[in-house]
Amino acid sequence: MTRFTLTIEYDGTPFMGWQRQTHGPSVQQAIEEAITKTGSGETQVHAAGRTDAGVHALAMRAHFDLDTALTPFRLMGAINAHLRPAPIAIIDCQIMPDDWHARFSCIGRAYEYRIVNRRAPLTVERDRAWQVIQELDVEAMHNAAQLLVGLHDFTTFRSAHCQSDSPVKTLDRLDVRREGEHVIVEAAARSFLHHQVRSMVGSLAAVGTGRWSANDLKAALEAKDRTELAHNAPPEGLYFVRAKYED
Amino acid sequence: MTRFTLTIEYDGTPFMGWQRQTHGPSVQQAIEEAITKTGSGETQVHAAGRTDAGVHALAMRAHFDLDTALTPFRLMGAINAHLRPAPIAIIDCQIMPDDWHARFSCIGRAYEYRIVNRRAPLTVERDRAWQVIQELDVEAMHNAAQLLVGLHDFTTFRSAHCQSDSPVKTLDRLDVRREGEHVIVEAAARSFLHHQVRSMVGSLAAVGTGRWSANDLKAALEAKDRTELAHNAPPEGLYFVRAKYED
Repeated sequence: MTRFTLTIEYDGTPFMGWQRQTHGPSVQQAIEEAITKTGSGETQVHAAGRTDAGVHALAMRAHFDLDTALTPFRLMGAINAHLRPAPIAIIDCQIMPDDWHARFSCIGRAYEYRIVNRRAPLTVERDRAWQVIQELDVEAMHNAAQLLVGLHDFTTFRSAHCQSDSPVKTLDRLDVRREGEHVIVEAAARSFLHHQVRSMVGSLAAVGTGRWSANDLKAALEAKDRTELAHNAPPEGLYFVRAKYED
Repeated sequence: MTRFTLTIEYDGTPFMGWQRQTHGPSVQQAIEEAITKTGSGETQVHAAGRTDAGVHALAMRAHFDLDTALTPFRLMGAINAHLRPAPIAIIDCQIMPDDWHARFSCIGRAYEYRIVNRRAPLTVERDRAWQVIQELDVEAMHNAAQLLVGLHDFTTFRSAHCQSDSPVKTLDRLDVRREGEHVIVEAAARSFLHHQVRSMVGSLAAVGTGRWSANDLKAALEAKDRTELAHNAPPEGLYFVRAKYED
């Protein structure tokens, strides 16, 4: 058996999310079936993070074990061929030590959230970003975001279905910037709670429109109460962009 | 009657192109029908340029005449509402003088062509860019592109269906740059021949892969012969980005 790691890009729109589900297509199932079709048997694919339905990835990392004579490069080509026409692409494939684990060896995860701040409906970016009509004060959003950076109990920003042992996490970075009509939020941490990024972005948008002050955000964080939450930003604006490992 | 101008963004994927066709949906027809549904009668919409099937627009300009009591802002909202769920958005609407013409008053047009230069299939950018697998030498492409800038007979880069009176045009700008795995070509001119941008990009890609030298490109231009053409780049990478008018 050889342990392989994959770097994976996908459009999350047609999937129920990363994780295999009984009630609809998943990215995990599509990749596992494509690997099986390469002719070396069945395997299970483990990812650095589990994205929700509609959430995209530009560079998800994953691993699996397979007994194959194919080089990583050939294996990548074969998986990509069998993935068609699903909007999933293997952009890199390498051999790793047997104790390397895409999820447990991961020491940092980064997400990007894309907002289009305008009145007109989305066309070329439909299902690729969240349209916010009301004008966003990006400086206010970025300043408020800094209140969330650091070690906190993020219960307020945690889904009821979150399986994490603890709501206490260290948020390394939460930056908000404007590029024309686009507002980009970048988040980095060792790990995130379920729905944490979308919850934080929803709350920052409330700050951006003036519905919430920075103090409201601070109070919501300190309340450690999910019902204090402004709202979740929708999945289509969220991209898993990077998983970090020790060299 | 009031003359209105629209600035329009659209995803060209589901359309036969801008121009109304008997055999399938067009952007023009969708907008004309949406205007009719605002309740002020029928009208014809004239665009600054006619894009082909699959070609996108970030800021197409158009005009039409309508007898309506709606302000431009309300009219824009009504048209957008009636356009749903078509991937077309009116991003601006203004009143113009009766002699202003989206096509004939236009003194400059700009296109952007997006290439993704990598081996892996496209996912989030599917139908939004041209995937070129072989590595592109962007400096060679940009240098060769400068041979096309200026006043030339562009017969080589002209579709057999081109309706322009003359193949002689002045190309103001043709820039090629790399942003990571993306290669962006920007083209600007008073006007373009049918398929000119896609033909030029296809030829520049031949230079980028080394199949053509800059001299081959020069010889093709000077041959004034369509059969000298490398090939057309596909429509999904092309975006109409700007129409310029006198103030």
